[in-house]
Amino acid sequence: MSANYVLINDDFVLKQDAKILITDLSVQRGYGVFDFFKTIRGEPVFLDDHLDRLYASATEMFLPVPFDRDRLKEIIRQLMIKNNLPDSGIRITLTGGYAEDGYAIAKPNLLITQSALMFDKTGFEKGTRLITFEHQRQLPHVKTIDYLQAIRLQHFIKQNNADDVLYYGASGIGECPRSNFFVVTNNDEIITPDKNILHGITRKKILELTGFNTTTAAIYPEQIASVKEAFITSTTKIVLPVTAINGDTIGDGKPGAVTRAIFNRLITLQGIE
Amino acid sequence: MSANYVLINDDFVLKQDAKILITDLSVQRGYGVFDFFKTIRGEPVFLDDHLDRLYASATEMFLPVPFDRDRLKEIIRQLMIKNNLPDSGIRITLTGGYAEDGYAIAKPNLLITQSALMFDKTGFEKGTRLITFEHQRQLPHVKTIDYLQAIRLQHFIKQNNADDVLYYGASGIGECPRSNFFVVTNNDEIITPDKNILHGITRKKILELTGFNTTTAAIYPEQIASVKEAFITSTTKIVLPVTAINGDTIGDGKPGAVTRAIFNRLITLQGIE
Repeated sequence: MSANYVLINDDFVLKQDAKILITDLSVQRGYGVFDFFKTIRGEPVFLDDHLDRLYASATEMFLPVPFDRDRLKEIIRQLMIKNNLPDSGIRITLTGGYAEDGYAIAKPNLLITQSALMFDKTGFEKGTRLITFEHQRQLPHVKTIDYLQAIRLQHFIKQNNADDVLYYGASGIGECPRSNFFVVTNNDEIITPDKNILHGITRKKILELTGFNTTTAAIYPEQIASVKEAFITSTTKIVLPVTAINGDTIGDGKPGAVTRAIFNRLITLQGIE
Repeated sequence: MSANYVLINDDFVLKQDAKILITDLSVQRGYGVFDFFKTIRGEPVFLDDHLDRLYASATEMFLPVPFDRDRLKEIIRQLMIKNNLPDSGIRITLTGGYAEDGYAIAKPNLLITQSALMFDKTGFEKGTRLITFEHQRQLPHVKTIDYLQAIRLQHFIKQNNADDVLYYGASGIGECPRSNFFVVTNNDEIITPDKNILHGITRKKILELTGFNTTTAAIYPEQIASVKEAFITSTTKIVLPVTAINGDTIGDGKPGAVTRAIFNRLITLQGIE
């Protein structure tokens, strides 16, 4: 295995040496934003969409990004050359920086990491089982580093023989901690919630697909039992069929036809096939 | 100025060298708990109350504390000797550890820092101005490192000529990000909210004081205009009179008699006078 480099501000360092001071506001106050995109055969996928969101998240949290978009792309390219991982996930994190008083935003620290990530289609056939939990993420439209509930709920997920948690709240079903949620109705209408969620890039690409009847609307927990198909989407998972929610089988418990059609369009769009 | 040491797990390191790997779940996912107590003339104040809460927070978040209470106290004592800061604040942080996958809880990292902290009574006479904001902290009874809203709202606070923000939600007034909130009614009843808040140690000590008519109950934003006095409490602030909320003066805009009486009892209890 070759050396893995990480970027911390202006410096490329080996992953095993990639450290920050504990005065950083991420450590002290959980304060930071990030984004995550894939590379396939050495090419970033939907990079501009991810950078749009990163800059938007940073602005919302009063964190200046130390580089403009062109310079950031150039640095990402340098990191990719150093690591030589054609199929990978790249995470860009921007923290609140080294706060003298442990509270006020300082000069942000920029952290860019790259890990091998190869898409595996067997996950699609297996699908995923969800368990619902009442929770509304704070600042849902911002991709912050806050996964306090998600990490804590890993025990709850296991206890309920599920693979992931599906948040719901006053505005209905929301999202999974790292994925958006879609249902397919008996009329083959594809619906995804629009309010109080993170607007995922994969979700956006699905809403832009031609040839499908996609719409955004509220979905309430009591509607779930009657849906024909359900699936979740993310950069890593692309499209993952939901086979059960709260122990109740969705459809026949196998990947549905509409879900499969969407999945096939997405992997074509991303150049995976 | 003498050298300042920090404890990271088993090692005492200089503050300027106190670093952790960026794979730590605090950096990756904002995952960690902490507690904070004072030392006055070299003696910890209410240490057992703070350790009770730290161990409870850790349990809630599935984070094993690497040391039992006696050993932890011994290590704190060692740090105090090395730093020789008789009047100080000591923060104990427990993070989610170095997660291989960036998501699952690993072996927690224990970080203990100490900073000079001298109580200054002039803050009491000046008081503090609050601005309300609708927000319910997640897992409110756990002292997590999540201060995402608090840090982000520093601009909002400044824009509104306030010193701090007072959260409210469906269950009424809650708390400030780092303080509990109390009101004094025209009958000298002292009321503090009980639901969906962090149970502060200073708050607990006030509720235990004899000679005052203290109670816990919901307080709604519309009740605030008619209160005689209001104050906030924390380990650092002890008792701070609230002189205005949303620009409306509380009482005559000066520290009230009941607030002052509570404050005097607290500083006596802590051995400050």
